[in-house]
Amino acid sequence: MAIVLGDNRYGKAEVRLVRVDRGTDRHEITDLNVSVALAGDLADTHLTGSNDKVLATDTQKNTVFAFARAGIGAIEDFGLRLARHFVDSQASIHRARVRIDQYSWTRLAVGGAPAPHSFARAGDGTRTAVLTYDGEHAWALSGITDLTVLNSTDSEFWGFPRDQYTTLQETKDRILATAVTATWRHTTTDAVDWDASFDAARTSLLDAFAATFSHSLQQTLHAMGKRVLTDDPAIAEIRLSLPNKHHFLSDLTPFGLDNPGEVFYAADRPYGLIEGTVLRDDAPPAGPAWD
Amino acid sequence: MAIVLGDNRYGKAEVRLVRVDRGTDRHEITDLNVSVALAGDLADTHLTGSNDKVLATDTQKNTVFAFARAGIGAIEDFGLRLARHFVDSQASIHRARVRIDQYSWTRLAVGGAPAPHSFARAGDGTRTAVLTYDGEHAWALSGITDLTVLNSTDSEFWGFPRDQYTTLQETKDRILATAVTATWRHTTTDAVDWDASFDAARTSLLDAFAATFSHSLQQTLHAMGKRVLTDDPAIAEIRLSLPNKHHFLSDLTPFGLDNPGEVFYAADRPYGLIEGTVLRDDAPPAGPAWD
Amino acid sequence: MAIVLGDNRYGKAEVRLVRVDRGTDRHEITDLNVSVALAGDLADTHLTGSNDKVLATDTQKNTVFAFARAGIGAIEDFGLRLARHFVDSQASIHRARVRIDQYSWTRLAVGGAPAPHSFARAGDGTRTAVLTYDGEHAWALSGITDLTVLNSTDSEFWGFPRDQYTTLQETKDRILATAVTATWRHTTTDAVDWDASFDAARTSLLDAFAATFSHSLQQTLHAMGKRVLTDDPAIAEIRLSLPNKHHFLSDLTPFGLDNPGEVFYAADRPYGLIEGTVLRDDAPPAGPAWD
Amino acid sequence: MAIVLGDNRYGKAEVRLVRVDRGTDRHEITDLNVSVALAGDLADTHLTGSNDKVLATDTQKNTVFAFARAGIGAIEDFGLRLARHFVDSQASIHRARVRIDQYSWTRLAVGGAPAPHSFARAGDGTRTAVLTYDGEHAWALSGITDLTVLNSTDSEFWGFPRDQYTTLQETKDRILATAVTATWRHTTTDAVDWDASFDAARTSLLDAFAATFSHSLQQTLHAMGKRVLTDDPAIAEIRLSLPNKHHFLSDLTPFGLDNPGEVFYAADRPYGLIEGTVLRDDAPPAGPAWD
Repeated sequence: MAIVLGDNRYGKAEVRLVRVDRGTDRHEITDLNVSVALAGDLADTHLTGSNDKVLATDTQKNTVFAFARAGIGAIEDFGLRLARHFVDSQASIHRARVRIDQYSWTRLAVGGAPAPHSFARAGDGTRTAVLTYDGEHAWALSGITDLTVLNSTDSEFWGFPRDQYTTLQETKDRILATAVTATWRHTTTDAVDWDASFDAARTSLLDAFAATFSHSLQQTLHAMGKRVLTDDPAIAEIRLSLPNKHHFLSDLTPFGLDNPGEVFYAADRPYGLIEGTVLRDDAPPAGPAWD
Repeated sequence: MAIVLGDNRYGKAEVRLVRVDRGTDRHEITDLNVSVALAGDLADTHLTGSNDKVLATDTQKNTVFAFARAGIGAIEDFGLRLARHFVDSQASIHRARVRIDQYSWTRLAVGGAPAPHSFARAGDGTRTAVLTYDGEHAWALSGITDLTVLNSTDSEFWGFPRDQYTTLQETKDRILATAVTATWRHTTTDAVDWDASFDAARTSLLDAFAATFSHSLQQTLHAMGKRVLTDDPAIAEIRLSLPNKHHFLSDLTPFGLDNPGEVFYAADRPYGLIEGTVLRDDAPPAGPAWD
Repeated sequence: MAIVLGDNRYGKAEVRLVRVDRGTDRHEITDLNVSVALAGDLADTHLTGSNDKVLATDTQKNTVFAFARAGIGAIEDFGLRLARHFVDSQASIHRARVRIDQYSWTRLAVGGAPAPHSFARAGDGTRTAVLTYDGEHAWALSGITDLTVLNSTDSEFWGFPRDQYTTLQETKDRILATAVTATWRHTTTDAVDWDASFDAARTSLLDAFAATFSHSLQQTLHAMGKRVLTDDPAIAEIRLSLPNKHHFLSDLTPFGLDNPGEVFYAADRPYGLIEGTVLRDDAPPAGPAWD
Repeated sequence: MAIVLGDNRYGKAEVRLVRVDRGTDRHEITDLNVSVALAGDLADTHLTGSNDKVLATDTQKNTVFAFARAGIGAIEDFGLRLARHFVDSQASIHRARVRIDQYSWTRLAVGGAPAPHSFARAGDGTRTAVLTYDGEHAWALSGITDLTVLNSTDSEFWGFPRDQYTTLQETKDRILATAVTATWRHTTTDAVDWDASFDAARTSLLDAFAATFSHSLQQTLHAMGKRVLTDDPAIAEIRLSLPNKHHFLSDLTPFGLDNPGEVFYAADRPYGLIEGTVLRDDAPPAGPAWD
């Protein structure tokens, strides 16, 4: 009946790192938000305040910048290098998790030609990665967030049960809009072309969203997840979180007007929230990847 | 090697409900943000788009408002009533989770007397609760978030290891500031005075934060968690997430000025993030409470 | 028909300064967000890129921290000292405007006694000030923002015109809620007790909000502004911006329930926005205070 | 020495309107945030609470949706129609200002072909417009906001004055990044091809940003503004607000590494804020456009 310390971890969060690759006159930029979380033999600092096993979060931040000097590459590779470093170099650290968000930029054009060193921030989704290493095994999650998509038709919602609190009318035509957050687990971290894999998964998600005639956002979610796994055998599992961003048809009848699916009110809250997982039935165990 | 549907849930999120209790001329207000998540026999809607087992999220929203008509009481009780309703009334729903955030308001005074129906929003933390019910058992989490606190002294950080990336200087006096997010698990959901329990836990957290001479934010975290469990035997476990909101001493030496711990720069990012659990070693299993 | 440079200004924005006053064991903290904007003889840097008249924004930031070393006092005084410094020390700077937001904190108690150096962030409004100096005259605005208030009754809205697009029902009882942003102009900057003036104005605003039986938010706005000017002869003018944070009565009739002003839905958007000015008819000219 | 009502206005803010144009199988969507502000003979509601001259903000919202039924077109035209309606139909309303933000979406492709009704939200800037009408004259502002751009070289900052608080080093190579907010005033509201004008102005801003070798952000601001006016004779004036989003070179020397302009820390706050106007010296008066 003692009071004890349970699971814990710590690290530096939201290190905002921008790298300019200047190998040629045509620059490339990489814009990251890196968060580190370390776990291990950390009871002392909790119980007595002794910090001799606590790699300072300031040191973690320095390490991120120093490692970036040699180049970043795919964020999954960069995250794995960092995670391995923390576990392999610190006896007290038994597990490291590195999360990286990558903001996308598009190259500007000047006079029709690609600008050599000018960019505009794109807003069509942020690439994400979570890398975990425990000294023996490594796990990689890739993903995307803040990817807002909309189908202006080919969405229905009907046939749902009606209890004493149900007032919603059935509809055979509605707007379906969501902001996609998806995270997928790779079967391996060896010799993966992470950039190609990400581009393909993003395309799979968008293709399935656009091509699915939807009777529910759940059906669309499943179609999106299944498409990713069908298109890439190296992905074992995908988890999706899809807010249903409601667009309500404006009632114009008081003004003597019809409204054949044209004028909508975009609501903020409340919203539906649909969350689901699609996976291979022979997928290896997830291990601590999702923790 | 088939592709299959895994864990999933859905519901209406962020239902913004305000209730006015008008029993007397002295009104009371309850300001809530309610999110429902339901799980169960939901494969059909994912696989075929058949919605006959999908209680519409709009219906869930209606239910929240209808249930509020009879009064709210403690948010834990209100959430339990809702969670039980969804599972007990819908054969396809096997588990319901209701999360409620409660915003605090303080009564205004006019001419020195408490105003009967006028309030100002307080900003000193939002009370939270997560209630889960599976048809047989119920689990209750209570908590607080957005509670920002600061100690202007009695905080040190030294004795940490120095590797090749370490540049941080040791300090024997720093500002310690954090925005507390804490969630604690109750051993039972029966006959709990939730409001008294919350008030006591909030006091325990603040007392421990203020009274702990800190050698690390981890030490403070453990002290805060332990205090809550020590003060309330009915709490089995607490999880804390404490961002270390760094305040850096401004270097005024270029201007011929000293700075004996007086002028600080409050940084946004990066920040340390310290997460930990304190629990009783004989605590009952958490079940799905934290899922 | 030439293309010319018009009005311009520049400066360092959002300098996050925290000061700890340690005069006694009982510490005090001051938590500020300071933004500087300078105007003057700045054509060169726009037209040729010559920066010999451009006091670097980094220098402005340094100045804020260095000036804080000697103490802050009321934010109006601190801002005036800064504004005067920039204009008086730089021949090219003809006007300086310093905006300061002050976040409020409350002292924690431990065991019933006030804690000597522990604080919690309060959320009941942020104090603001804007100080302008042109080398000859100074102007002071004080204000408050993010002060959210609610009356649960004593608010009506009826008698408005009904055109072909009007569907709103008249109401004799509604919730009236708003987030107050108010800025008031002082007749002088000499020998003002800024802290006392602010406290009084805040009280005036809240008292008038609570005590006004409201037929429109405009009426409440006017009452609030007039009260501030009535209570403090040294305030010449006040401008208020009041979003009407709508709370809609939930229609529970489909569920066989009445709803006598008890259960509301708090909407995010759209919202009404009511903006207005109350001033003395013999107020001195505002000069550049509001620019 | 009486206390009087000064300038005032009111309206419905942030009406979130989405229109689907279904003229063909290839849908188009228009995603707007519309805010209305009306001024006129509104003393009564402030002074007595009589609302007989107050067109309800709910009615304003309805009007926005009803007007959208007939089509939107360019947001400047839509805003002008609304502004004219409010002034022309309500004797008590003497001036209307309608602000519209338009969020951009890009059409998805499926299998290489443009999708007929599927879209992704783009994040490369929000188009804005502010239309003002006083019963006689109309004024149009167009603009863009949240357009984040970055040059990874061709930016210097040196030659600035050094006072006692200056510590900044001169640089001959830095990252220049900003989030553009620009608003420009048209010389007329008659027969303007608003969409073409906006596209051209956006291109002018980006071209000038990319092509300007910058000695200060002020120089870049002026070049951007001048380019817009040079490229479009129908634009009389442009105002720009450019935060200087600092990217600081990471000091890697403690780790035995150089850093030739490759690894940067992207800071949040404080930031420089550069604001300026470029206009024609024979521009007609702005009237109430910017109020």
